[in-house]
Amino acid sequence: MPVLELLQQVNASAAFNRWCGMEVTQADSGSVELRLPWRAEMGQYSGLLHAGLAATVMETASGFAAATQCGPQVLVTQFSVNCLRPAQGVAFVARARVIKAGKVQSFTQCDLFAVDAAGAEKLVANCQAVLAVGTTPA
Amino acid sequence: MPVLELLQQVNASAAFNRWCGMEVTQADSGSVELRLPWRAEMGQYSGLLHAGLAATVMETASGFAAATQCGPQVLVTQFSVNCLRPAQGVAFVARARVIKAGKVQSFTQCDLFAVDAAGAEKLVANCQAVLAVGTTPA
Amino acid sequence: MPVLELLQQVNASAAFNRWCGMEVTQADSGSVELRLPWRAEMGQYSGLLHAGLAATVMETASGFAAATQCGPQVLVTQFSVNCLRPAQGVAFVARARVIKAGKVQSFTQCDLFAVDAAGAEKLVANCQAVLAVGTTPA
Amino acid sequence: MPVLELLQQVNASAAFNRWCGMEVTQADSGSVELRLPWRAEMGQYSGLLHAGLAATVMETASGFAAATQCGPQVLVTQFSVNCLRPAQGVAFVARARVIKAGKVQSFTQCDLFAVDAAGAEKLVANCQAVLAVGTTPA
Repeated sequence: MPVLELLQQVNASAAFNRWCGMEVTQADSGSVELRLPWRAEMGQYSGLLHAGLAATVMETASGFAAATQCGPQVLVTQFSVNCLRPAQGVAFVARARVIKAGKVQSFTQCDLFAVDAAGAEKLVANCQAVLAVGTTPA
Repeated sequence: MPVLELLQQVNASAAFNRWCGMEVTQADSGSVELRLPWRAEMGQYSGLLHAGLAATVMETASGFAAATQCGPQVLVTQFSVNCLRPAQGVAFVARARVIKAGKVQSFTQCDLFAVDAAGAEKLVANCQAVLAVGTTPA
Repeated sequence: MPVLELLQQVNASAAFNRWCGMEVTQADSGSVELRLPWRAEMGQYSGLLHAGLAATVMETASGFAAATQCGPQVLVTQFSVNCLRPAQGVAFVARARVIKAGKVQSFTQCDLFAVDAAGAEKLVANCQAVLAVGTTPA
Repeated sequence: MPVLELLQQVNASAAFNRWCGMEVTQADSGSVELRLPWRAEMGQYSGLLHAGLAATVMETASGFAAATQCGPQVLVTQFSVNCLRPAQGVAFVARARVIKAGKVQSFTQCDLFAVDAAGAEKLVANCQAVLAVGTTPA
C-alpha cells in the first residue's frame, strides 16, 4: 500500500484524529503534510485555535513523518512547541520532516501554517520532536 | 471573585475546554489542578489518551497557574512535553506550579497523572512552559 | 566501586569537565549533585555565568543521574533549559533526578542554584533532559 | 558600525566566548554564523565535543541572530537542544536564524555542523530558542 494511503488508514483508526477532522494530504519518505479544517469548537478563550490542538496536529504529523522512514513502531516521547502568532484561519496545515532517523531515536521538525479564506499561509507555530523507535515502549 | 471560581469561569468560556470536559478542581497562588475525565473519543491509535490532549490539559493548567500570580494577561508561548508512560486511566489530573513569575516572562512546571478506577495515580507525562506576561501578544 | 567515586572518575576523564572544575558532590540511585565553583573566565557579556555553562553543568548532572539507574551507556540526546534569573554566585550547584528510567529512553529534571558567599542558594535555571539508553548511539 | 563588526565586538567582550575561541563569521538581518575551532580541552568522556559546548555556540548564535533584528537588549531565556550525531570535527559551524521577531519575545532556530579536514559539513545538533526582548530582565 502506498505510504499516503497507509497513513490515512492509521489516521482514521484514531478516535481523536477523527474528531479533529485532520486529513493526511501528502506523504513522502521523511515528510508529511496534515490539514486541519477549523471549527468553532476548537477554540480557546478568544476564539483562536487552542494551543493544545496546534500541538495535536504537529505531534501527529511528526509521528507520521518518522513512520515513513522508521516504520510504524515509532512513538513521540518529547515535543517542544513554540506559539509564534495568533492561530486564526479557515484551516491549518502542518508540515513535518525528519531531521535524523536513527535506530533508537529519531528527530523531526514541524511548521504549522494558518490558511486564510484566500488560501494564503502564515506560520503560526512550530515543533521539534524526539521519537523512540522500535517495538518497546519508551 | 475567588481565584478558583474565576478560573472555572475562564475555563467554561473556551469552546475546546468545554469539549474536553476539563474541570478546574483546585487553585491557589502559583498552583492549579485540572481534571480530565476519560472518554473514548480522546484516544489515539491504540486507545490511550492522545498526546495532543495530554499537552492540552498541561498547557491549560500551566496558563492558569501563571494567571494566579501574573493576572489574566498571560500567554503560553513555549511548552515542552515529555510522554513518560502509556496514558491510560478513568481520568487524568494535571498539577501545574509557577517556578518563576516575572514581569515579561513566567515559567511553570506541570505533571500529568493517570487515575485508575481505584483512585490510584501514576505519573504519565510532564511539561515545562514559558509564558509571555502583559497585554501585548508574544 | 561506590557510585559517587565511579562518577567522580568518569567526571575526571572528560577534558571539558576538568576545565570547568565541576565536582560530583553527591550521588544516589536516581539523583546526583554537581558543584561548579565560579571563575571570571566563565562569564558572558555582563559577567554572569554563561548560559552555555549553566547548560553544561545541568546536562552533565542529568547524564550522571540517569547513569546511577541505567548504567554507563546513557546519552543525553535532548535537553531543554530555562534561564530563570541572573546566574551570579561564588559557586553553582546542579541537582538532577531521574523522573522515569526506561529500557530505551530515560527522563530527568535538574535545578541549578547560585550559591552566594554566605552559602545561601537561589534557583537560577532548570533543565529537562531525554536520554537514550543502551550501547547504540541515538 | 556594520552588524558583523558589532557582534564581533560583543563576542570579544565575553570571557567565556574568548576561551571558546568562537568567531562570528557572518551576520545579516535575522541570521548569524559562528565558527568554533576544535581543541582537545573541549571534549567529553570519549573525546567528542561536549554537549554543553554545542549548546554554548548555538545559544550564542541564537542571541546574536535575534540581536540583528531586535537590538542588543535580547536575552535567551529558553533553549532546547537536540544531539543528533557524534560531534566530531576540526571545527563546528552554528547557523542561527530568526523565526519570529516580536516586541516581547523572539524565536530562533539554529543548526550545528561538524566540519571535517576536507571542509565537508555534517549536521550534528540543532536548537530552538525563545528570547525576551527589551531592557527588563525576564
